[in-house]
Amino acid sequence: MSVNRRFLLARRPHGDPVPEDFAFVEQAIPVAPSGGFVVRNCYASLDPAQRGWMDDAPSYMPPIPLGDPVRATTVGIVHASDSPDYAVGDWVMGLNGLEDYSVNHAGGFTMKVDIGLVDSPSKFLSAMGAVGLTAYFGLTDVAKPQPGETLLVSGAAGAVGSAVGQIGKIMGCRVIGIAGGATKCQRLIDDYGFDVAIDYKGKSVEQLAAEIRAAAPNGADVVFENVGGEVMDAELMNLAKKARIVLCGLISEYNSPQKIGIRNLWQVLAQQATIHGYLIMDYVPRFAEGGAQMAEWMAQGRMRIDEDVQHGLENAYPAFMRLFSGANTGKLVLKIADGL
Amino acid sequence: MSVNRRFLLARRPHGDPVPEDFAFVEQAIPVAPSGGFVVRNCYASLDPAQRGWMDDAPSYMPPIPLGDPVRATTVGIVHASDSPDYAVGDWVMGLNGLEDYSVNHAGGFTMKVDIGLVDSPSKFLSAMGAVGLTAYFGLTDVAKPQPGETLLVSGAAGAVGSAVGQIGKIMGCRVIGIAGGATKCQRLIDDYGFDVAIDYKGKSVEQLAAEIRAAAPNGADVVFENVGGEVMDAELMNLAKKARIVLCGLISEYNSPQKIGIRNLWQVLAQQATIHGYLIMDYVPRFAEGGAQMAEWMAQGRMRIDEDVQHGLENAYPAFMRLFSGANTGKLVLKIADGL
Repeated sequence: MSVNRRFLLARRPHGDPVPEDFAFVEQAIPVAPSGGFVVRNCYASLDPAQRGWMDDAPSYMPPIPLGDPVRATTVGIVHASDSPDYAVGDWVMGLNGLEDYSVNHAGGFTMKVDIGLVDSPSKFLSAMGAVGLTAYFGLTDVAKPQPGETLLVSGAAGAVGSAVGQIGKIMGCRVIGIAGGATKCQRLIDDYGFDVAIDYKGKSVEQLAAEIRAAAPNGADVVFENVGGEVMDAELMNLAKKARIVLCGLISEYNSPQKIGIRNLWQVLAQQATIHGYLIMDYVPRFAEGGAQMAEWMAQGRMRIDEDVQHGLENAYPAFMRLFSGANTGKLVLKIADGL
Repeated sequence: MSVNRRFLLARRPHGDPVPEDFAFVEQAIPVAPSGGFVVRNCYASLDPAQRGWMDDAPSYMPPIPLGDPVRATTVGIVHASDSPDYAVGDWVMGLNGLEDYSVNHAGGFTMKVDIGLVDSPSKFLSAMGAVGLTAYFGLTDVAKPQPGETLLVSGAAGAVGSAVGQIGKIMGCRVIGIAGGATKCQRLIDDYGFDVAIDYKGKSVEQLAAEIRAAAPNGADVVFENVGGEVMDAELMNLAKKARIVLCGLISEYNSPQKIGIRNLWQVLAQQATIHGYLIMDYVPRFAEGGAQMAEWMAQGRMRIDEDVQHGLENAYPAFMRLFSGANTGKLVLKIADGL
């Protein structure tokens, strides 16, 4: 590879991203900046949060500047370095871009990773990365479920949701998952050990609320929310008193120009529930701790994290859109290079 | 008074309550039940929460049964007693009904009150009652603002909101109030010492959000929410990072058959904010503590709680509707009898 291929944000999407919102260009491979280094990206994480970063709106992170590559967490190898902390050949995880080579610096979200712990570097983008650890810290540190409590997970067949359900089972919860379609629901039971799987597709809020009620007559003590919108409205009608809602994602509305929100907020008041807006970034200093626990559970066969590996930077757009079509099963990653 | 006049819920209102939803009847004065007592109600509290109790919907309290008097907190005098804890002539506060005489028992929300502390028994329905103490505990115990933080209060000219703002100032916050109309906004500044008053009337969510942003460029650290709907959506666009939202009331939608909710929930996620569904009931055991603090502030001239006293049980309906027309200024109470 003698050039740097880059998948740029060319304009801000309106609703569903279309191919014209992006540009695929070739540039020279960057040189290491003073004190920094250049990463050869091997795997990139494709996440719903990226859609939010494409909007020009106040958020926890600045919007992706137009003309910049689409921001992505990647794992890769240091290609050139002027940093005393990172040597050529080191494996690193960091917030980079959908491109062959990214400029990075020590600090922030950037860290070295021990590739010997895993069967594929992509694991640092799934089980041992932001996705698995979003599930881990969101459940163990924010919701803090007690054994015997009922945990309700939306987007349950997704990368975060399936990990949340499995951790909930390890913690002794009764776990109910909501997913779209019979195939995904079957996977919740067969692959991830959920107690109950509920298919939201084709159901009104009232119908979905009634199905949840049948599965959890005393309500949910913990809701791990990845979806928002009508799914969340149905969940809100089934809160146990003082329920804790971990608001982790709102994938139902990321492509919606008009934000949807929730109608049944009044139930949060009536049930004295709490909604915790939750981002993984505060837990970056504890990634080693969480990753070790996830690795132990995987080694014990108690934790299964599926990956949906798409291939080639040139396929960045169709790969990314799999997040919104429901096509992906497991954590979606884009393989950019072998790196070995 | 030789009969018990009662203001009954005759059918469940659809949207705004109409006179036909209620019935005004006369019955015999009840006798003290075994172990219980009968209260001669002197003042009754009229609150937005009563509208919620009229609906047949899951909530923190069972719906008011059809044919029962409209549930209300009252303060009154024990008229007859079979209780070892309550003697005839004792002043009591409790969850009773809009009627001359109510049957009650020791326990729960029922407590004796020291009428010597106040200039009118109605104070136990305002500053020293659920309203003043909703403000007190919601701010001091749930939101826990730090000196120098920005506090944003909706429904700021209302009974709870005006107390919240004053307590916020005592705690060293910069206090911004949102209210409807120039007169109410002027009262926020002149009577309650708010730093900024914003009139929401006739403004879009975007316009209101921009006005809040001008007053709080770094966002609100604490939001005390009494209104919901579009007012709350505008507030949500102005959250400081890790803002705490005390969800105390949703008066904008209590008469709405379709719940409104919020559209800008995504900002709770983006700013890592927390929404606390908050009801005063958990704090009943601490009412004496909170009441003493409120009484001290009132005696020092640092706390002003206005009352809007309406007269006569026969006026229960028009008095109640003042809550929703914006006509009331200060805590709305209905005087039923002198009691002296």
